[in-house]
Amino acid sequence: MKLWDKGISIDKKIEQFTVGNDREVDLHIAKYDVRASMAHAKMLHNIGILDASELEQLQTGLKVLAEDISEGTFYIDAQFEDVHSKIEFELTKQYGEVGKKIHTARSRNDQVLVALQLYYKDSLNLIQDKTEAFFNSLLKLAETHKEQVLPGYTHLQVAMPSSFGLWFSAYAELLVDDVYLLNAAFKTVDQNPLGSAAGYGSSFNIDREFTTKELQFATLKYNVVAAQMARGKSERTLSMALGSLCNTLSRFAMDICLYMSQNFGFISFPDELTTGSSIMPHKKNPDVFELIRGKCNKIQALQTEMLLITNNLPSGYHRDYQLLKEHMIIAINDVVDILDIFDYAIQQIEVKTIDLNDEKYQYLFTVDNINTLVEEGMSFREAYQIIGKQVQDGTYEPDRSKQHTHAGSIGDLCLEQIKAKFPKREKHP
Amino acid sequence: MKLWDKGISIDKKIEQFTVGNDREVDLHIAKYDVRASMAHAKMLHNIGILDASELEQLQTGLKVLAEDISEGTFYIDAQFEDVHSKIEFELTKQYGEVGKKIHTARSRNDQVLVALQLYYKDSLNLIQDKTEAFFNSLLKLAETHKEQVLPGYTHLQVAMPSSFGLWFSAYAELLVDDVYLLNAAFKTVDQNPLGSAAGYGSSFNIDREFTTKELQFATLKYNVVAAQMARGKSERTLSMALGSLCNTLSRFAMDICLYMSQNFGFISFPDELTTGSSIMPHKKNPDVFELIRGKCNKIQALQTEMLLITNNLPSGYHRDYQLLKEHMIIAINDVVDILDIFDYAIQQIEVKTIDLNDEKYQYLFTVDNINTLVEEGMSFREAYQIIGKQVQDGTYEPDRSKQHTHAGSIGDLCLEQIKAKFPKREKHP
Amino acid sequence: MKLWDKGISIDKKIEQFTVGNDREVDLHIAKYDVRASMAHAKMLHNIGILDASELEQLQTGLKVLAEDISEGTFYIDAQFEDVHSKIEFELTKQYGEVGKKIHTARSRNDQVLVALQLYYKDSLNLIQDKTEAFFNSLLKLAETHKEQVLPGYTHLQVAMPSSFGLWFSAYAELLVDDVYLLNAAFKTVDQNPLGSAAGYGSSFNIDREFTTKELQFATLKYNVVAAQMARGKSERTLSMALGSLCNTLSRFAMDICLYMSQNFGFISFPDELTTGSSIMPHKKNPDVFELIRGKCNKIQALQTEMLLITNNLPSGYHRDYQLLKEHMIIAINDVVDILDIFDYAIQQIEVKTIDLNDEKYQYLFTVDNINTLVEEGMSFREAYQIIGKQVQDGTYEPDRSKQHTHAGSIGDLCLEQIKAKFPKREKHP
Amino acid sequence: MKLWDKGISIDKKIEQFTVGNDREVDLHIAKYDVRASMAHAKMLHNIGILDASELEQLQTGLKVLAEDISEGTFYIDAQFEDVHSKIEFELTKQYGEVGKKIHTARSRNDQVLVALQLYYKDSLNLIQDKTEAFFNSLLKLAETHKEQVLPGYTHLQVAMPSSFGLWFSAYAELLVDDVYLLNAAFKTVDQNPLGSAAGYGSSFNIDREFTTKELQFATLKYNVVAAQMARGKSERTLSMALGSLCNTLSRFAMDICLYMSQNFGFISFPDELTTGSSIMPHKKNPDVFELIRGKCNKIQALQTEMLLITNNLPSGYHRDYQLLKEHMIIAINDVVDILDIFDYAIQQIEVKTIDLNDEKYQYLFTVDNINTLVEEGMSFREAYQIIGKQVQDGTYEPDRSKQHTHAGSIGDLCLEQIKAKFPKREKHP
Repeated sequence: MKLWDKGISIDKKIEQFTVGNDREVDLHIAKYDVRASMAHAKMLHNIGILDASELEQLQTGLKVLAEDISEGTFYIDAQFEDVHSKIEFELTKQYGEVGKKIHTARSRNDQVLVALQLYYKDSLNLIQDKTEAFFNSLLKLAETHKEQVLPGYTHLQVAMPSSFGLWFSAYAELLVDDVYLLNAAFKTVDQNPLGSAAGYGSSFNIDREFTTKELQFATLKYNVVAAQMARGKSERTLSMALGSLCNTLSRFAMDICLYMSQNFGFISFPDELTTGSSIMPHKKNPDVFELIRGKCNKIQALQTEMLLITNNLPSGYHRDYQLLKEHMIIAINDVVDILDIFDYAIQQIEVKTIDLNDEKYQYLFTVDNINTLVEEGMSFREAYQIIGKQVQDGTYEPDRSKQHTHAGSIGDLCLEQIKAKFPKREKHP
Repeated sequence: MKLWDKGISIDKKIEQFTVGNDREVDLHIAKYDVRASMAHAKMLHNIGILDASELEQLQTGLKVLAEDISEGTFYIDAQFEDVHSKIEFELTKQYGEVGKKIHTARSRNDQVLVALQLYYKDSLNLIQDKTEAFFNSLLKLAETHKEQVLPGYTHLQVAMPSSFGLWFSAYAELLVDDVYLLNAAFKTVDQNPLGSAAGYGSSFNIDREFTTKELQFATLKYNVVAAQMARGKSERTLSMALGSLCNTLSRFAMDICLYMSQNFGFISFPDELTTGSSIMPHKKNPDVFELIRGKCNKIQALQTEMLLITNNLPSGYHRDYQLLKEHMIIAINDVVDILDIFDYAIQQIEVKTIDLNDEKYQYLFTVDNINTLVEEGMSFREAYQIIGKQVQDGTYEPDRSKQHTHAGSIGDLCLEQIKAKFPKREKHP
Repeated sequence: MKLWDKGISIDKKIEQFTVGNDREVDLHIAKYDVRASMAHAKMLHNIGILDASELEQLQTGLKVLAEDISEGTFYIDAQFEDVHSKIEFELTKQYGEVGKKIHTARSRNDQVLVALQLYYKDSLNLIQDKTEAFFNSLLKLAETHKEQVLPGYTHLQVAMPSSFGLWFSAYAELLVDDVYLLNAAFKTVDQNPLGSAAGYGSSFNIDREFTTKELQFATLKYNVVAAQMARGKSERTLSMALGSLCNTLSRFAMDICLYMSQNFGFISFPDELTTGSSIMPHKKNPDVFELIRGKCNKIQALQTEMLLITNNLPSGYHRDYQLLKEHMIIAINDVVDILDIFDYAIQQIEVKTIDLNDEKYQYLFTVDNINTLVEEGMSFREAYQIIGKQVQDGTYEPDRSKQHTHAGSIGDLCLEQIKAKFPKREKHP
Repeated sequence: MKLWDKGISIDKKIEQFTVGNDREVDLHIAKYDVRASMAHAKMLHNIGILDASELEQLQTGLKVLAEDISEGTFYIDAQFEDVHSKIEFELTKQYGEVGKKIHTARSRNDQVLVALQLYYKDSLNLIQDKTEAFFNSLLKLAETHKEQVLPGYTHLQVAMPSSFGLWFSAYAELLVDDVYLLNAAFKTVDQNPLGSAAGYGSSFNIDREFTTKELQFATLKYNVVAAQMARGKSERTLSMALGSLCNTLSRFAMDICLYMSQNFGFISFPDELTTGSSIMPHKKNPDVFELIRGKCNKIQALQTEMLLITNNLPSGYHRDYQLLKEHMIIAINDVVDILDIFDYAIQQIEVKTIDLNDEKYQYLFTVDNINTLVEEGMSFREAYQIIGKQVQDGTYEPDRSKQHTHAGSIGDLCLEQIKAKFPKREKHP
């Protein structure tokens, strides 16, 4: 059963091509379609299109479907091209005519759209929660390891003293910026598109404020053309926000892989978190962190995909938009997994004591030495020349005694202040 | 004079390669470097590194430079590799030793970073203002043309009635979402990185809260490693936000180019805004809108560039970051120009009266006809079959009389509500 | 059974995270792993590591597996992390010790790599064949419709006379360039990596020339580090080549969608190839072509993904590379489907007769009129002014009689010459 | 003077917006425009549009311009919007009417296109030559350092023995694949588009075979619509090919930066090739290699830009295409510089002797030990278990004596065979 079926036989292969993986993909949004259908039905009742008993029938039917979905017994058979046809079919099978009536004053376009927006909202909330959990783990690790020194690098060259506390909390603080983008994405999807129908609204006097409130959207996407164009805009914005978060995670994973190398040897992980080699028996590889890095990099590419699918298309719906949801949904699930795994794994980290007397770290403190001269009254440029000459002559003696005390330095990590920066979740009224 | 010059002769070609276009590019951030240097000098005085007369000398010198910059008489000669060397040189030439002292407790890293963040903040404010101006122009056009019908398309096929009012205000409402991202970008750059030095802070007891307040940053990027990593993160976030805005503009420009085609013929522009052809004397080409589209598409690619330059690099400064600023600055200037030109041009639009009796628009009202049947009690699916049959039989008669009345439809554009959605500018205290 | 299992319990969730969809994805390369294993076993026999009866056992076992694979009865159970573990397990179950011996002098790295390269080679050959079939269909359509005029557009404005013949054969000729890239990709993967082991070769005196010949590779990737780095390079190159092909297909699909719009009305397709709307009974939407366009645009984004996963990683294998194959394989299958569907669909095209007397096409022939004046001795610039003035005055009279005769013009499509340009398939000796 | 000027005043700002940097950018293609104009003039003479004296005048005038260009005295004043207007103006100023006649049977579209294709051809040849020079330097370094061991890494973990010879020649062999793409790009641009005019050819009986031969193109882009669509296709293909080359260079630069880190300490460079820090006097930073890496990564993003500008645009010229050339030309110049600098710099490399007795390298030879057991008759899997146990027990003793002898291994680099793989340059007849 295809909604647009006009009795014409359609070549099998083409059907497969057009339906794609929708039957599988749509399972992720099934419950949101039911929720939105419920609100739509109530609204149709309010404006007199459904009578009380029709509404009751639909509500009963939708509740049953909601239960099937939450129990995992709901599936989309090969005869349906998507979740929306399936639900309409079930309601019609059960209650006859009224099952068909629910499609009044809406189109599949806004039906898909509203289900996706609801799904994206829930997903963003979940991701923000998991980001906060990870953020808190990092701050905790920073507190625990705040005294443990770590060489700081610039240009991958040994530069100045750093600490594990500084390293952990750096990535925590960077997550704050990512949450700004998650919140912007949340606001973008927190606008009710239901009622935009095929992108030009309808001649029914529907009550969009009612469904907005019922579905707990912060506001409407008023303009029906704009509402339709949220398809694509939502996905581009989400993929930007997820990409930004993934960039932070990926680069942290890069540091971890590097620091686990024998040539750095700054950290290690228990055997459960490393993997071996099929030919080298000594290997303890950081596969988990490499896969976090790789998956995060993959997700960073998603924005280009979303963009290329939608770019330069004139306004109005195009079937191309169907292709946005699959990878978006996979990316969302991946980000959730990555945050879970990373948060679990990072807490197993074993921080090593680094011997700063090692020859390769001998110049780690040159700036501190310069600063001592400056504090004694010399200009910075002059002091720089003097210590520089000592380094060249081989007469340089490191002074490892200086304290770093300013806000955000190794001596004052400002963990409380960083914690306070984590943005609140966007709320619906 | 290169700051790191240790008396070693450097091959000319390599110098050119490493300096790049910095001398030219840096002019855009010169005034921000002066502003941050001023704050830094005050702070050094506060913590006792500069005495009152030294501070006064530096303030005088910096003010002179600020004037040169604002008058356009400041330039960076070939002997300097960037604006920062040039400024230090000028101060030293004028005041001797104290000119060198200003570099105490900072590095070129945080010096560039703070200047860029200040520049980005100003730029984002400017872009938000210009976006709002364009948004208001669109709402005004929507009001003016709210009664003028426009065929609505889905799949580029004639679908349902739309209006110019709906079309203009759709793009206005989409801009609201873009501003969410501009605001997220603003928050990302509105955090003081000064004091992070080379990315690991310093042993001076600098007062970063003071410079934060002095430079009107909303907060600090506390962690000095995180502050350093703002290089790259800022540019990725900005390019996302600008890219999103440009996507809206580019797609609007696409509609315009399409609607100007003789095959649509919905709009035109005065001759001043069209260009001719070198071989076809009849042409009035929409070059301005094509270039808006093309430039906007180009800017949408910037995020990939920013990402590729920074991705998979371990924490800590890398020289690669120098390459971020040039295209970022060009993109900012381009976006400002595009908004100016687009706002000017759109106000010249000539909206045509479209003859909906034309055969190609005959089915524009089928859904309205269906809805009438539904209102008379038929289920939507059944009514759909009936009108569908009329279309196939050639017996269909359009009913163009139905009013669309719901929120966001052609009959109720909700322009006031859309206007109210435009986000406030992020403020500094 | 995991090859690197050292008896340590691994958290379930992490296992899922690291294995990913490999069990499913690997089915596409199972037969190539068997083929490469066969060649590897023969080589091990040649250099004395396997005796004749061991070789025979392995060959028998591998043949059985090859049959299972070709009959679709081969699958990878949950206890195996990939196809390679599964095959080794089966051989060992069947023949004991010798099943373990086959892993001598190779690593999973080069095992995956060689299987992928063989798979890519076959895929590229298939894609080139299908591209050629499509190319031929287009040339045939060009021949059929060579006399049917089509307005030519620049800037989406009516410009000069074109023809359906010119339009069809334009996309044919563009495909030639895409095949240059397919061939470059073919050469890139047509180099034997087997023997590179984990990326540093081995101390066994293996005979890589033998396996090269046996597996019909054109040459070796000699350097074992380079061979390992083919992972990623292959995928980047393939995604470039597929992306280029998809760009041509996508833009052709865009033209088709536009020309099907009622406002152009240049072509149509039988009902079997169009789809309806859930609310508009009159719709015949070009979903097939929109999905071709969308899928092609999606595939064009793949190159960014492949790049981001691999970029800035130091030499030597990283687990991130595992993530390259899934989307690469899906893209290959999609391209094959797209070519099939497009080739089938384009042959159903219905070309309409376009009335060039329609007012909107009145200036289609201005350049031809100018050229007549030029042929009568006027300079081009002057003739341009004269016809331009006629257009402005409304005195212009189109002359539709001129013939276009030069090579590649509407009057001489050069279909034979274009046909001859289609590149030969790269051959292995 | 604008070619399409119809006496209408054009707002200054819009003119600036539409002209962009063309006056500066076009200098790179000026000489190719002259060359193509020369061929076009000869052809116009051949078909009787120009008489002998007109041809002579034009040839003289074009030769003068060619000299100005080669001597650097040619520039494009603010009154011209591009190089093509400027050249036409100069010819007309000098020779009157005939200067206008040269534009007969061509449009600015094919004029720009043919100049760009000629420029791209020359550029690709230059890049291929410089790639070959760098390739040869790497092979030479490989020969010089073939005995010097280098630890091989997988997952950034110490894995198996490698050598500097293997490392250098790995990147050499990877360049071979990049040249396959350069050649594909060359073939793509080596097709004469001249005569396609505005993308639909002309009614003059022009001789495109003549200009093809005269300009040394391998063939024609026959179809005039396809010829026009080479705009964009050329740039996408070139940016793919340059991107691929840059990927190899960028990853080599990454290795170099990593190996220069004190924690690896495998290589160093003379002071001339390193830079210092503004605050750390001990620093010798690998800025040159970081900038190579960064610039190469930037160029890898170009393909996305070229794609986004052109994607989803219907066939026929659009003004957006003007935006393709600037960044393409800059990228070409950058690639040339990068190859020069990299080739110069790599020859200064100082290869260090690495102490493999260092504890961190103790397991570098485990596979060699396993292989010895295998050679003694044990299965690989069993030997793996035994050595694995020794590693765990701490009883493992490395055997560093094994020779690697197979093709492409550290013991047999196959430099001659790799050298022979470097593809020949595509030739024009």
